Amino acid sequence: MQVEIITIGDEILIGQIVDTNSAWMAQELNLIGLQIKQITTVSDDESAIINALEEALNHVDIILITGGLGPTKDDLTKNTLCKYFKTKLIFDARAFEDVERLFHARGITEIREINRRQAEVPEGCKVLYNGLGTAPGMWFEKNNKIVVSMPGVPFEMEAMMKNDVLPKLKNQFKLPFIQHKTMLTHGIGESFLAELISEWEDKLPSNIKLAYLPSAGSVKLRLSGLGKDPILLNAEIEKEVRKVEPFLRPYLYGYDTDSVESIVGGFLKQTNKTLVTAESCTGGYMAHLITRIPGCSTYYLGSVVAYSNESKQSMLQVDPSTLENNGAVSEQTVIEMARGAKKKFNADFAIACSGIAGPDGGTVEKPIGTVWIAIATPDKIVTQHFLFGKNRERTIQRTSQTGLHMLIKELKSLI
Amino acid sequence: MQVEIITIGDEILIGQIVDTNSAWMAQELNLIGLQIKQITTVSDDESAIINALEEALNHVDIILITGGLGPTKDDLTKNTLCKYFKTKLIFDARAFEDVERLFHARGITEIREINRRQAEVPEGCKVLYNGLGTAPGMWFEKNNKIVVSMPGVPFEMEAMMKNDVLPKLKNQFKLPFIQHKTMLTHGIGESFLAELISEWEDKLPSNIKLAYLPSAGSVKLRLSGLGKDPILLNAEIEKEVRKVEPFLRPYLYGYDTDSVESIVGGFLKQTNKTLVTAESCTGGYMAHLITRIPGCSTYYLGSVVAYSNESKQSMLQVDPSTLENNGAVSEQTVIEMARGAKKKFNADFAIACSGIAGPDGGTVEKPIGTVWIAIATPDKIVTQHFLFGKNRERTIQRTSQTGLHMLIKELKSLI
Repeated sequence: MQVEIITIGDEILIGQIVDTNSAWMAQELNLIGLQIKQITTVSDDESAIINALEEALNHVDIILITGGLGPTKDDLTKNTLCKYFKTKLIFDARAFEDVERLFHARGITEIREINRRQAEVPEGCKVLYNGLGTAPGMWFEKNNKIVVSMPGVPFEMEAMMKNDVLPKLKNQFKLPFIQHKTMLTHGIGESFLAELISEWEDKLPSNIKLAYLPSAGSVKLRLSGLGKDPILLNAEIEKEVRKVEPFLRPYLYGYDTDSVESIVGGFLKQTNKTLVTAESCTGGYMAHLITRIPGCSTYYLGSVVAYSNESKQSMLQVDPSTLENNGAVSEQTVIEMARGAKKKFNADFAIACSGIAGPDGGTVEKPIGTVWIAIATPDKIVTQHFLFGKNRERTIQRTSQTGLHMLIKELKSLI
Repeated sequence: MQVEIITIGDEILIGQIVDTNSAWMAQELNLIGLQIKQITTVSDDESAIINALEEALNHVDIILITGGLGPTKDDLTKNTLCKYFKTKLIFDARAFEDVERLFHARGITEIREINRRQAEVPEGCKVLYNGLGTAPGMWFEKNNKIVVSMPGVPFEMEAMMKNDVLPKLKNQFKLPFIQHKTMLTHGIGESFLAELISEWEDKLPSNIKLAYLPSAGSVKLRLSGLGKDPILLNAEIEKEVRKVEPFLRPYLYGYDTDSVESIVGGFLKQTNKTLVTAESCTGGYMAHLITRIPGCSTYYLGSVVAYSNESKQSMLQVDPSTLENNGAVSEQTVIEMARGAKKKFNADFAIACSGIAGPDGGTVEKPIGTVWIAIATPDKIVTQHFLFGKNRERTIQRTSQTGLHMLIKELKSLI
């Protein structure tokens, strides 16, 4: 049973927004055993939509469409589906209640004609009511194939998937079981990793596939198994994981949805310790990663983003002579930043970083991408020097992630 | 002249990564007058790749492929293209030099067999050398159609597009001229905006299209014009912009690639003023937005991320009795946070926020999503209360963006 996702929207085709809906949908569909065969993005154009729909119906049984359901004139999905399924629009009283409720909650009493028209749906489809927005979803069935149309606004689509679409799909089909297990590594390149585990990889059973997923500073190894019995499949995959783990040991830092920030959080919770950060070149991104984890307030006390030299002195007690003699991007400065932050917040651990993210500010001695990171633990400070290249965004991300990896190493050695 | 982008990778189809390459490519292709007809994502599978390629060749003249060129066994694009174009792999000495150079730069002298194979290319294609990675790109021409294959690693693909693919495409075709102009609005919903400007929209010339692009707290209005003469087209679009601007005035905050953080930066640079932030619920994300702008160190001094009550007192001089009597999420607390940050950093402006991002911590009086924001200017402090809903990530983003919009309002009134 295979699925195609069709995303409708000129804004994606001109690159104004990135399609994040498809990744979210793919994850959720995989969890119930549905495989995505293709993701197709087409414009808000009748013939493009119909063409994509027809091609998809040749290959798959389930088509999930997002986008093009807004109230404005550039949104054509509803009328196009109406035409394709040879039906007409009818007014749906309950969909109109959703529109009214939403407008009243925003303090608006007068409903405009274009919003009233959002409560019109193609006759004969099953309406998927939208508690969070004004556009209802639509579920069509024809020749044993399913076509579902949902709004493109991510949180509206996500609620509709969780409340209606996923339960209905699960109900309607006997699905094979898909299971993924991902091992997260840091500090080794893709090709070295591949050579390290090539013997194991060659002997993998045919129903288990391996993929290498490199991203800034880390390579994820994903095993995907297909089977009829979830318990047997799980045991089979776990067996392979245990076989390969000894090879991965120095590089392995987590599994599946773990992130470097969630693992840091887990260690700190477990040991009842606290963390602060002192950031220069990352400009708050390290704090942002850490605070993405719900409940982080039990171990994360805060951060000082000290962008200027003055703030490094006043907020983090960096010695003015250190800045003068060594510069803001130096080992001695990050040592003092980490020490100052740890003391000011009265924390157990601190991460500090200072670097040249670019595009300006590089010198021959300290080119763009030069970064110093310090980790202060209860009894010592460790430092490391990096060269992360000329891309500002990438340097911000890699510095933040590398700082957290350095902290994990220290936390591990204390347990 | 239309383009299809084909993205190859199981990791996208199972939702493990979001395809950001396509948006970047679409933007760049649009700038040289090429329209994207479709974006298709298929798995690392020979028949899926060939099928996508054949369907695309029915509709477009140029096909740009990314992904599936890694050294490992799950990467099949090169062999599949070789088969499709009925050619064979040959060793390319210059591509091998790229591999060697990259490995030497990383301090590795011994090149592995799987990396040596990365320097093999299909005979007859034009090789696009990769200065930043180990996989060369490939440019095929057949029956007046162009098929280009590039690595999926974003910065490698981007360099290859800029250095080779875009100049070659520009050279090879006489392209029509596409121009976009986007107006950025804040504080008005999509349907109200549509009603406000519907008369103007109805009278747009047929070669100019309007799109509404809503995103958290903001609606972008994009005009897309198609024409033969860039100067005439530009004048036509500018004329329409000037016509609609009076209606948009209270909501309009910028154009095109402007962002709320770049506009804040522009105002501060222009007036020679400085900014600091004091963040609680946004956890450094506001600082991250501000520091995404290169050169922000001339006006942005830094941030205190005060996640704990203690740090609000010690780092921002919030009165303990304020926290006790009003709670950390209160008007009085954000006023003192803004005042404290402004004073500590000796800045002209400060933004402070405190809220309940969730998923825990809500009460009946202060439900999840409750946020207070304060803006301190040289002579006053303004505050506002918000309810941003139950999604943690969304609340972090909306709070950060709203704080910056509130600051813009104050900066505007001072100029």
